[in-house]
Amino acid sequence: MPNRRAVFFISDRTGITAEALGNSLLTQFDGIDFKRTTIPFVDSPEAADRALAQIADAATTDGRRPIVISSIVDEALSLRVRQSNALVLDFFQIFIAPLEQEFGFKSSHAAGRSHGLRNSQEYFSRIEAINFTLAHDDGQSTKELHRAEVILVGVSRCGKTPTSLYLGLQCGIRCANFPLTPDDFGRGALPDSLLPYREKLFGLTIAPDRLRAIRQERRPDSQYASAEQCKSEVAAAERLMEAAAVPMLNTSTKSIEELATTILLQRRLDRHIF
Amino acid sequence: MPNRRAVFFISDRTGITAEALGNSLLTQFDGIDFKRTTIPFVDSPEAADRALAQIADAATTDGRRPIVISSIVDEALSLRVRQSNALVLDFFQIFIAPLEQEFGFKSSHAAGRSHGLRNSQEYFSRIEAINFTLAHDDGQSTKELHRAEVILVGVSRCGKTPTSLYLGLQCGIRCANFPLTPDDFGRGALPDSLLPYREKLFGLTIAPDRLRAIRQERRPDSQYASAEQCKSEVAAAERLMEAAAVPMLNTSTKSIEELATTILLQRRLDRHIF
Repeated sequence: MPNRRAVFFISDRTGITAEALGNSLLTQFDGIDFKRTTIPFVDSPEAADRALAQIADAATTDGRRPIVISSIVDEALSLRVRQSNALVLDFFQIFIAPLEQEFGFKSSHAAGRSHGLRNSQEYFSRIEAINFTLAHDDGQSTKELHRAEVILVGVSRCGKTPTSLYLGLQCGIRCANFPLTPDDFGRGALPDSLLPYREKLFGLTIAPDRLRAIRQERRPDSQYASAEQCKSEVAAAERLMEAAAVPMLNTSTKSIEELATTILLQRRLDRHIF
Repeated sequence: MPNRRAVFFISDRTGITAEALGNSLLTQFDGIDFKRTTIPFVDSPEAADRALAQIADAATTDGRRPIVISSIVDEALSLRVRQSNALVLDFFQIFIAPLEQEFGFKSSHAAGRSHGLRNSQEYFSRIEAINFTLAHDDGQSTKELHRAEVILVGVSRCGKTPTSLYLGLQCGIRCANFPLTPDDFGRGALPDSLLPYREKLFGLTIAPDRLRAIRQERRPDSQYASAEQCKSEVAAAERLMEAAAVPMLNTSTKSIEELATTILLQRRLDRHIF
């Protein structure tokens, strides 16, 4: 395994930030087969020693030292992890000093504040956004649409549901979504229930070939998944959205994160959870 | 505003990693009113200059230099941002050099790989996990339960749905969830449809007071939200799960991220998406 390398994401809490940071860096190195392991909740000397043992094992197996991306607030524990036989990059240790100097006081060095439960209000508003998004998925309900911060529209399977869920769960945004269907294309107009909320609408569109591949997974060899149907639905939906001046994003080459970020930016919405 | 400080998360892509890293650091500094702004898609000199203008404005308004947490792969653009009147912490610039030295070759310096659309297979498996989770929310379906990687059980409103969605959307895990109801408590047994999958079950429980507050938001002053009902349901659910040796987590003081991380760890599941 000449190009294999073990990578450990180690944290005193969930490890989600260490994973995000580490994966972002690793994507820059092609040709290495990274074997990723997250070790969360390293908040005691015993847990640190167990992590060190895993790191040492990987070093022995691979014949080369692992990479450790760590985020440990406690200095003694961080030091213990940094003594492992690995390249250890601890972002907390590197970044906290310049911030302490800038602010003129010492940080609290309290673990578990990120991705932890900070306060009930934030929890409730996040849960409320998730519930709103679920209740308004796929045009299920038009009740309380005035409370939506954004309403996604587009043909079936163009990416509305995952994008809505991401906005609800990760950003705390109340996001409804509505399918545009052959019915609407026949009438040549957006669904009536959406008309009062035109300024909240955001359109998703998709390359017909990609829509076909996605629908094919869902209902193989159906009329719904046919090349012709996908092509005509996409064209009709785009005409409808253009006529109604609904801003539009093509989901074919964008990740859910890129779609959500672009929608927040264009709609000038701030995430409600951090 | 003596304790106000502007913070910018700047990235050539979504900014999600910069936000996670930055927020993780900022939670360590109490008593400062951070005003957060994310500027994503800074991938041209013009976009960098617009970001610099925003930073300069904030410095003037606040009378002190902002904090910039940045993640920009392009060296010239990163340099431009680092020349702003701010404390700039660019994690990409800081961490890529030791990794290049370790691996013995230069990184690709290609923007947009993190939180971007890497390949169709990853996209499909993520969408499939989301669809599975939605189709199996709240015991809606027992079809294809054998394909679940984990099945959450617990009383209504104890946190099953948000945790399931997080596991589906953020980890690509096929997670079903089933409510434990007074029916099950009367019979003194888990729902029959779950019995074949006992090794996939994971229980969520909750402090009765917290359950009451959550149900009260949903159905104010109902029997369902009464202190007595919440207390007896939680006790009965815990007895049922203990008798069936289902591992159990208390959601009262844990974030969705902490719950998901603990479930992955205890069930020895790896996230399917990075």
